[in-house]
Amino acid sequence: MNVIADLCVIPLGVGVSVSKYVAECEKILTNAGLNTHLHAYGTNIEGEWDAVFSAIKKCHEKIHAMGAPRISTSLKIGTRTDRTQTMQDKIKSVQDKI
Amino acid sequence: MNVIADLCVIPLGVGVSVSKYVAECEKILTNAGLNTHLHAYGTNIEGEWDAVFSAIKKCHEKIHAMGAPRISTSLKIGTRTDRTQTMQDKIKSVQDKI
Amino acid sequence: MNVIADLCVIPLGVGVSVSKYVAECEKILTNAGLNTHLHAYGTNIEGEWDAVFSAIKKCHEKIHAMGAPRISTSLKIGTRTDRTQTMQDKIKSVQDKI
Amino acid sequence: MNVIADLCVIPLGVGVSVSKYVAECEKILTNAGLNTHLHAYGTNIEGEWDAVFSAIKKCHEKIHAMGAPRISTSLKIGTRTDRTQTMQDKIKSVQDKI
Repeated sequence: MNVIADLCVIPLGVGVSVSKYVAECEKILTNAGLNTHLHAYGTNIEGEWDAVFSAIKKCHEKIHAMGAPRISTSLKIGTRTDRTQTMQDKIKSVQDKI
Repeated sequence: MNVIADLCVIPLGVGVSVSKYVAECEKILTNAGLNTHLHAYGTNIEGEWDAVFSAIKKCHEKIHAMGAPRISTSLKIGTRTDRTQTMQDKIKSVQDKI
Repeated sequence: MNVIADLCVIPLGVGVSVSKYVAECEKILTNAGLNTHLHAYGTNIEGEWDAVFSAIKKCHEKIHAMGAPRISTSLKIGTRTDRTQTMQDKIKSVQDKI
Repeated sequence: MNVIADLCVIPLGVGVSVSKYVAECEKILTNAGLNTHLHAYGTNIEGEWDAVFSAIKKCHEKIHAMGAPRISTSLKIGTRTDRTQTMQDKIKSVQDKI
């Protein structure tokens, strides 16, 4: 089952700047071989369900290991069985209609 | 790693009423032995990381098997290493301050 | 336009405990005359669009005034034109099918 | 109060393809003079609180006017008082640390 997800991790108890934690997650996602796109409020991720969720678990483990005592993550998960669709397909589908 | 999550599944392509799909997810979560609380915009879930995510995957598989060609899920995931905290603890912690 | 919303405010830069900020938001929502239900990962809110969003703006203003330099909020917004539906209707609709 | 938001509208009861509704929202956001970035699971929006929320309300009104009887929207809202930060600043802050 292929997934297009959107991940936004928020470490708590480490001050206002969270970019170094997000950067570590980007590395984890890339090392997992997942397609990603970093935007201003999260990261689009494309891949097989198990690979995506295994990487997200590693992100939580890593952020805690870096010293953040608490994490609140928002995740969107899109799956479809009618056809395959890439992240780029989704964007193009909208842009063609603007 | 214990998780307090909040799950909101939205099947697409099956009309405006989605309650029968949500009801099936409730059964899956309960059968997985997870603590849950159904509210008006999702379901709180409490349990071990792997048990929670295994159940969420089953929800997607079940909703597709019921005929929904597309699903868009919103998920919140809370983990903490500083102390254990139940769903009820979180609510009480707020209510004590109102 | 009536709205059923789900609000989860996360103040950043104020440590791991955020319950006192959430408690202030509960007061703001109640004082605005909105129906609410506090759960373990946010608050369901029911009311007219403008009343709901005016209250949410006040929540951000209040949390900043309490000293939080940064806030990241997750909000779900449900509207429908086919029929009226309360928060309790949504829950009952699922529970009847379990 | 400046906001960086992330908007994901999901019309229900109109089939699996939602891109034409998203495209209309893009037009509304652009016509409101807001900075936006369309990604694969939503749209980043930057602007003044009232301008952003006025545009989001117009999106719901427009999608209903196009015939969608139900909408479920996910929204993230970021505000900060410690410093100004653009969408591009947020991305650069992460990329500099990868």
